[in-house]
Amino acid sequence: MAKGLLMVMTGEGKGKTTSALGMALRTAGHGLRVCFIQFIKGSWRYGELEAIKRFDDLIDFHVMGRGFTWKSENLEEDARLAREGWSKACGAIESGRYHLVVLDEFTYLLHYNMLELPACLEFLKEHCPQQHVLITGRYAPDALMAAADLVTEMRVIKHPLKSGVKAQKGIEF
Amino acid sequence: MAKGLLMVMTGEGKGKTTSALGMALRTAGHGLRVCFIQFIKGSWRYGELEAIKRFDDLIDFHVMGRGFTWKSENLEEDARLAREGWSKACGAIESGRYHLVVLDEFTYLLHYNMLELPACLEFLKEHCPQQHVLITGRYAPDALMAAADLVTEMRVIKHPLKSGVKAQKGIEF
Repeated sequence: MAKGLLMVMTGEGKGKTTSALGMALRTAGHGLRVCFIQFIKGSWRYGELEAIKRFDDLIDFHVMGRGFTWKSENLEEDARLAREGWSKACGAIESGRYHLVVLDEFTYLLHYNMLELPACLEFLKEHCPQQHVLITGRYAPDALMAAADLVTEMRVIKHPLKSGVKAQKGIEF
Repeated sequence: MAKGLLMVMTGEGKGKTTSALGMALRTAGHGLRVCFIQFIKGSWRYGELEAIKRFDDLIDFHVMGRGFTWKSENLEEDARLAREGWSKACGAIESGRYHLVVLDEFTYLLHYNMLELPACLEFLKEHCPQQHVLITGRYAPDALMAAADLVTEMRVIKHPLKSGVKAQKGIEF
């Protein structure tokens, strides 16, 4: 590997998680191993879960956390789950087993101060030269974007949910 | 299906094709059929090609065109290939066989005037209420975005190739 990249996909627009899934599958297509950690648990992700199962020889998939938001009433439990998730991520990154580690929807943990940003960044900066890491989610902190090699912002130009069309199978979930 | 969506992913940033791939796999994860037509041929797409093979029961994959650009020296041949590709796309959309039809990198054909934009838009507007269609590529024409239900722009905030890091397996291709 020429250089491990720290990549961030952020913004309000569609395509962050689907892009992470696509990159994971592209990597697996090369026969390279991926660790995909999803930080927001939600039963609606049936499509991805079934799709990724066909790659269980190459993609290790983990779901952390417990719901759609990290801004719940039980902040202590959220913080505990956030630390648990981050610890899983660190283990995957340090293991050297993976070509790519995806931390899907991870930015929320930083945005809601569930983790200490400086310590996370220090860890990522130390390990990313040997490891590709892709972080997705809205509200990526400026310091994370500053530390990253690649940052894409998914901008909403138009969104059907805003014009009253409901979320649809295969497209939104 | 509540309503077929015409979706566009455009912009200079990374994540358009990977997101289309992710959406195709998510759809296949639901057991729904996808037709994925790639309008720029290139042997570098080994990762995607291998990945998508695992879904050949649900995803029909076609490569049209002949290279990285539609702005070649042989404009007549390009235009012929563009018409051939569009004809394949129309057939897939009209067939009713697919939950989602992806026209990957299709915007270039419109941008370089290889096809007649008004006729394409008329066809898409007529058929999209019964069919999800996702179009990707830079330089999406304004009229296409105006006709679409969903438009995401992938914006480059930072790109490693600009700082001299070369394209890497699994990440860029």
